[in-house]
Amino acid sequence: MSTPHPAADPAAGAAVKATDRAHVFHSWSAQGLIDPLAVAGAEGSWFWDYDGNRYLDFSSQLVNTNIGHQHPKVVAAIQEQAARLCTIAPGFAVDVRSEAARLIAERTPGDLDKIFFTNGGAEAVENAVRMARLHTGRPKVLSAYRSYHGATAAAINLTGDPRRWPSDTASAGVVHFWAPFLYRSPFHSDGEQQECERALRHLEDTIVFEGPGTIAAIVLETIPGTAGIMVPPPGYLPGVREICDRHGIVFVLDEVMAGFGRTGRWFAADHFGVVPDLLTFAKGVNSGYVPLGGVAISAEIAATFDERPYPGGLTYSGHPLACASAVATINAMAEEGIVENAARIGEQVLGPGLRELAERHPSVGEVRGLGAFWAVELVRDRATREPLVPYAAAGEAMTAFTAACKQNGLWPFVNMNRTHVVPPCTITEEEAKEGLAALDAALTVADGFAV
Amino acid sequence: MSTPHPAADPAAGAAVKATDRAHVFHSWSAQGLIDPLAVAGAEGSWFWDYDGNRYLDFSSQLVNTNIGHQHPKVVAAIQEQAARLCTIAPGFAVDVRSEAARLIAERTPGDLDKIFFTNGGAEAVENAVRMARLHTGRPKVLSAYRSYHGATAAAINLTGDPRRWPSDTASAGVVHFWAPFLYRSPFHSDGEQQECERALRHLEDTIVFEGPGTIAAIVLETIPGTAGIMVPPPGYLPGVREICDRHGIVFVLDEVMAGFGRTGRWFAADHFGVVPDLLTFAKGVNSGYVPLGGVAISAEIAATFDERPYPGGLTYSGHPLACASAVATINAMAEEGIVENAARIGEQVLGPGLRELAERHPSVGEVRGLGAFWAVELVRDRATREPLVPYAAAGEAMTAFTAACKQNGLWPFVNMNRTHVVPPCTITEEEAKEGLAALDAALTVADGFAV
Ligand SMILES: Cc1ncc(COP(=O)(O)O)c(C=O)c1O
Ligand SMILES: Cc1ncc(COP(=O)(O)O)c(C=O)c1O
Repeated sequence: MSTPHPAADPAAGAAVKATDRAHVFHSWSAQGLIDPLAVAGAEGSWFWDYDGNRYLDFSSQLVNTNIGHQHPKVVAAIQEQAARLCTIAPGFAVDVRSEAARLIAERTPGDLDKIFFTNGGAEAVENAVRMARLHTGRPKVLSAYRSYHGATAAAINLTGDPRRWPSDTASAGVVHFWAPFLYRSPFHSDGEQQECERALRHLEDTIVFEGPGTIAAIVLETIPGTAGIMVPPPGYLPGVREICDRHGIVFVLDEVMAGFGRTGRWFAADHFGVVPDLLTFAKGVNSGYVPLGGVAISAEIAATFDERPYPGGLTYSGHPLACASAVATINAMAEEGIVENAARIGEQVLGPGLRELAERHPSVGEVRGLGAFWAVELVRDRATREPLVPYAAAGEAMTAFTAACKQNGLWPFVNMNRTHVVPPCTITEEEAKEGLAALDAALTVADGFAV
Repeated sequence: MSTPHPAADPAAGAAVKATDRAHVFHSWSAQGLIDPLAVAGAEGSWFWDYDGNRYLDFSSQLVNTNIGHQHPKVVAAIQEQAARLCTIAPGFAVDVRSEAARLIAERTPGDLDKIFFTNGGAEAVENAVRMARLHTGRPKVLSAYRSYHGATAAAINLTGDPRRWPSDTASAGVVHFWAPFLYRSPFHSDGEQQECERALRHLEDTIVFEGPGTIAAIVLETIPGTAGIMVPPPGYLPGVREICDRHGIVFVLDEVMAGFGRTGRWFAADHFGVVPDLLTFAKGVNSGYVPLGGVAISAEIAATFDERPYPGGLTYSGHPLACASAVATINAMAEEGIVENAARIGEQVLGPGLRELAERHPSVGEVRGLGAFWAVELVRDRATREPLVPYAAAGEAMTAFTAACKQNGLWPFVNMNRTHVVPPCTITEEEAKEGLAALDAALTVADGFAV
């Protein structure tokens, strides 16, 4: 393998970890029960620890390093911008902020041509919700079960997975509905077309009974990410668009995870020919090299705030270093055909390879996805589709599967009973095949827990 | 003046601004009514535009560049870290993340030794509130009028200034109370001691009537920043600490603006000998060179999440590039005595200089502050203390004053009827005096609106 090889230095790794355990409080974790791997370095599709182990990154970290680790053009752009101007307040005009906004607007669907920058995904969702509420003058927001939108108050209330529960505010003005998911159909559908029709009918009914005049926005991940990469049937999002138009509801697509090449198009919305009113992004916009997110805003909603002040902001909106890294990332992705690479790897390697694994492994209930964005749904029983571990629970089966991946040099993205195959969009065919081989071995472990 | 001089390039500036107006949606603004200055560069206490104008930065942008613009050690650290490892998921241990947490914990008061990193101030406040609610099992949070805590849903509801109004959720579980502010005493006090006693009595009464068992946290800016730099009487914060202890309420100090040297100490809490349970920070921790914020957590609250997972997180928690810049910033501040410089400039130059201006200018009602953290309260009438513009309103007087500052090469921080004198903590005596001279001229314009 032509990958950078780590120089082992276990003592240094132990020191990093000891200080981490003394002083770093980690996201989503029981602090006393975790044992974080000390990472020494990363490049392309790989990262490595201090003990001489390296891992093929099938997670893209938190599905953000679409351009791979340490892309030289983005690193150089950060270094150059650091030398020029690290930070300046949001009120000024700055070359890299202007250019990042222009490059993003050039790629977003329709007339989403004004960009409000944030530091990450949650803040993007927070601001999209604020814009929708003020634009419509309505209080409620609809979002889907099986979704994740971030961890600040409005964003976590929109979220439709168990991470919402401890922070839930029943009074947040959010109503959850069910989006299409044929493999575990909430609508007892027998096919994609029926799932689509029934999901749209369910949404329409929910709106009618909530009162259309009370609903500011519908917020959906174009393709739900962490919740399971459920690619919606072709007619669903255009159907939601039509419902929103009919009821004067703002349509927000959250592309924090699905955007910027992940699905083999610049935006996942491009697969469905649908134009939302607001589109949230983060992660892939600059692969997370510097914290950055934002909202792309339609001309109509932007006009609402032409003479009336937009009442939201943050100290680092349009941060120069972050914007410079976005400019370099987007340009490199365009120059090097990275979006096209994600599409090709999905069609020619990951799709066929995962389907082949599904045939051989009884623990695989379904594989689904596109581009560099795939889910493998693990089940105890293919016939009943009983998940390998129950909803919202951990379990020995997934722990053993995860350990097996790592032993095979593969760093997986695992959520409940699923593993997601979400490598960098820059992954080569050879690397993808190597990852699939490691997955093959780990699935044999999962098979041991299936009937 | 020995400051870097801009090479004028008006055409380039016009292009930056045209693209900005086409594509950048700005914080807190009516998009059609703003005319953002295009900034070409910055160094130390200065920044400049494309037209050959340079400005002495008496704002530190949004009071974040405590170390000044483009500090060479911080720039170099960002460049080195960019070459090594730009990003890695929060679940790993990383050298710069460990070291940043250690350096912060070393400086925070008391046993606030575990650090949860965020991208900025609002997310820090959001997570502090979540920790307090889960630690106590109680729903409500108390915060002060005349405060700012950020613009995400929980943070904006805590905020006690007009920026809250458009995003207000009466159901957010926040109760606002009045903190001490002798110049406009909510308690009709005749001196600092009485203001302190009455403010504590008011807080205690509010708690008793809200029900102590319903209150998770009291959130206070140690010294309120944007709301007016009201240094509390010496006994106030210790008094709040005692009240919190008596009622089992978590005491959160928000040091997003006041922390990391701004007041001439590492933390503003150090002036009052008070140790909160949670301390939020951002801005000065790395002067905003890369977006970063966080919460410093007491041993007791951290222990709550030893075996029970902490249900919050974000993709960029403990971002390596941000942490590397914090390490370099904190080390440079220590090596170069930057905190001590802020204290000295406050005591020897800004304090005396502002008091001298107050004597000569009828528009100055009060000056107050410490370190590099001062407010000048402008009034129409010194006797009645009527503000130069009404609360929550703009007005010709402040517009004219602001324009006069800029004409004199001074970039002010203006909020309602106040100008804040909040230069970098690295400012020299000569620069501070130059800024005071420009302020002197601009105050003459303000005097024209006073009786
Ligand atoms: C679809 C989606 N929205 C929002 C977020 C929140 O982004 P952040 O973690 O940057 O706040 C995420 C994070 O995974 C996401 O996947
Ligand atoms: C005291 C205080 N808290 C929180 C915030 C919010 O920080 P941010 O803008 O980084 O979200 C600010 C910003 O000015 C602040 O001054």
